[in-house]
Amino acid sequence: LGEKRLKKRNPGIVTLITDFGDRGEYSGAVKGAILKVNPHCQVVDITHQIEPQNILQASFVLKHSYPYYPPGAIHLVVVDPGVGTKRKAVVVEKEGFLFVGPDNGVFSCLFSRGERISGNEITQVKFFLPLVSDTFHGRDIFAPVAGHLSLGLDPKRLGPSIKNLVFVDWPAPVMSKKRLKARILWADSFGNLMTNIPREPYGRIWEGRRIQIKGKGWCIHRIHRTYGQSGPGRPIALFGSGGLLEISVNQGNALNTLGLKPGDPVTIVWQ
Amino acid sequence: LGEKRLKKRNPGIVTLITDFGDRGEYSGAVKGAILKVNPHCQVVDITHQIEPQNILQASFVLKHSYPYYPPGAIHLVVVDPGVGTKRKAVVVEKEGFLFVGPDNGVFSCLFSRGERISGNEITQVKFFLPLVSDTFHGRDIFAPVAGHLSLGLDPKRLGPSIKNLVFVDWPAPVMSKKRLKARILWADSFGNLMTNIPREPYGRIWEGRRIQIKGKGWCIHRIHRTYGQSGPGRPIALFGSGGLLEISVNQGNALNTLGLKPGDPVTIVWQ
Amino acid sequence: LGEKRLKKRNPGIVTLITDFGDRGEYSGAVKGAILKVNPHCQVVDITHQIEPQNILQASFVLKHSYPYYPPGAIHLVVVDPGVGTKRKAVVVEKEGFLFVGPDNGVFSCLFSRGERISGNEITQVKFFLPLVSDTFHGRDIFAPVAGHLSLGLDPKRLGPSIKNLVFVDWPAPVMSKKRLKARILWADSFGNLMTNIPREPYGRIWEGRRIQIKGKGWCIHRIHRTYGQSGPGRPIALFGSGGLLEISVNQGNALNTLGLKPGDPVTIVWQ
Repeated sequence: LGEKRLKKRNPGIVTLITDFGDRGEYSGAVKGAILKVNPHCQVVDITHQIEPQNILQASFVLKHSYPYYPPGAIHLVVVDPGVGTKRKAVVVEKEGFLFVGPDNGVFSCLFSRGERISGNEITQVKFFLPLVSDTFHGRDIFAPVAGHLSLGLDPKRLGPSIKNLVFVDWPAPVMSKKRLKARILWADSFGNLMTNIPREPYGRIWEGRRIQIKGKGWCIHRIHRTYGQSGPGRPIALFGSGGLLEISVNQGNALNTLGLKPGDPVTIVWQ
Repeated sequence: LGEKRLKKRNPGIVTLITDFGDRGEYSGAVKGAILKVNPHCQVVDITHQIEPQNILQASFVLKHSYPYYPPGAIHLVVVDPGVGTKRKAVVVEKEGFLFVGPDNGVFSCLFSRGERISGNEITQVKFFLPLVSDTFHGRDIFAPVAGHLSLGLDPKRLGPSIKNLVFVDWPAPVMSKKRLKARILWADSFGNLMTNIPREPYGRIWEGRRIQIKGKGWCIHRIHRTYGQSGPGRPIALFGSGGLLEISVNQGNALNTLGLKPGDPVTIVWQ
Repeated sequence: LGEKRLKKRNPGIVTLITDFGDRGEYSGAVKGAILKVNPHCQVVDITHQIEPQNILQASFVLKHSYPYYPPGAIHLVVVDPGVGTKRKAVVVEKEGFLFVGPDNGVFSCLFSRGERISGNEITQVKFFLPLVSDTFHGRDIFAPVAGHLSLGLDPKRLGPSIKNLVFVDWPAPVMSKKRLKARILWADSFGNLMTNIPREPYGRIWEGRRIQIKGKGWCIHRIHRTYGQSGPGRPIALFGSGGLLEISVNQGNALNTLGLKPGDPVTIVWQ
């Protein structure tokens, strides 16, 4: 994208996905460092509650929020256990959005493994804070860079172009003949348990078939469309808004009720 | 309100009250879907920490925050256990504000039971996201509608007018002769315990009288004006900023100290 | 600063540091009361998760976030256990920023004890909400005042000038000959444990010397530069982005792993 074109379409929006938590000064310092470069941009918190160092969760949250923003929005992802080591800082373009963050796999859910990407390493120190710490590149590098991008800076001016990103694989479920071994990835704020089972292709495979979704001590016999379709307190399975099969309890909390936790196995068998 | 008048007075502010929690992509996707329609509006988080499915708590928080905003602000409330079932989506007007959300009682604290309201059902799909999911109308319906309203859209264009809302009753305390049976509703972040006792009429009834506010193992003998009026660590009762009688511990945490939890009974006797 | 000059440089940004938590209506009401005065200012959450009534923590978070904002930003700090008592409300200027809050020590980390400051008491009720409660000056006084300041109001118009602030001392570590007795202040969201040991002068004193950093059951033998420099799960000490010595576990959680909690002692000996 040319700088002029970027400037034109740029809505001046920078979103944040981090594992900083909502306590302390980390997210506030990052927001300041963006606004210092562009006081007129709107900084939007997506979440600061990514599990510490959970790169794949950050990537998943990004995948399911970025497309809802106006084109030209800058998405900043800072889950960065390797800060201060030799991992790269990068900016990547996709569908008219710019993505800024460490090159450690946080963008894995946006691309397929080995896919050629359009991006740049971030090496031009003139766009950083004057003093760069060893432990907080979110504030010292990524934030001011995002601020400059929100003003229309051409990403090409940030550093050499790159064609690949570090990639972290999604923990795919294992299918044998009419049996799927899956697991719980994490719980949302309602206690809904996300599995690693995407709607594609499994939703199609299971359509119209008898099915059992099983964990220790519970079994669900069908896939519903929405939460209100079972009685209150009853376990239910459905493909959620993020496209993953989730185990829920209508008007309840599956995390607490079913005694399941992230990492636990879930088995699906069908006929 | 005519569309022109709305446009004129519209400060381009959309507030959010949800039970999405601060983890995950839910609130970020909603904010994106608002900003995609109106990239220049300011999206303001009131809270995403309503207890899951606690419609009355959402309504209470709304009642005690909306009037502080500039007229024309759009208040979006998404506590929506019935998403994807036949509950209506609505927009309501009051005091120059617009309120958007599911018709399940989230607006109960704004009106009296049976009060005629000025509102519209939201049925016009052209204001929704192109693809509407079964589980996330916050993102797919309410957010883009709020975005359009923040641009000055006349609510009448969203669907047929309505005159009533689903109403959820406040759990009123029970008064017998000089005795009130009440209960704890919830705790705030300081551990202050909110009762279901409104200042009106009880503050007036009790003025100048000897009073006992009692739970298991504690008794308070007067109603103070502010927190600092008792010694640190001492239990205290006062009518808080939201107009409810609350049980507090000065510089302490009543929730932890008094062993009370939401739902527990509180008795008041007076002479 | 003259009113004209303030107006000119003013980026219309108000930041918030409070102990309100992210539940309930408190922060939302404050944001509304700012926006009602200046619907075009950008309200930025730094944190609402200061430990209840922890004035020094609020001050520390402020110190490590405010300088990253564009000059002219208004920083509002509401940790206010003395609300409704005779503590003053104040506005202070430093480095082109304005700081608004109760005069109870929340600005201690910005100044040295006894330092002459440039500030004003806030007494002019015409800048308050029409009705001021006894328990919520964040909403009724500080917020509308911050809104007016973001429009360029000269702080001098808020009330009489003041030259001193209430000051809360930092809990300094105790040094005897080549031995420092320190303690854990708090943990960040990663479980990194902040000590009360500033980089100055200790970083310099210890440079090139053999050192032991000790608690119950663990001992660290050097100070690293960044987190990734030890093996995963290993305890590590480093001066963090806020300038304090912190005890961390690489890709882990020191709070949970080391059994340390705020208030616990840490001893450093060197040769």
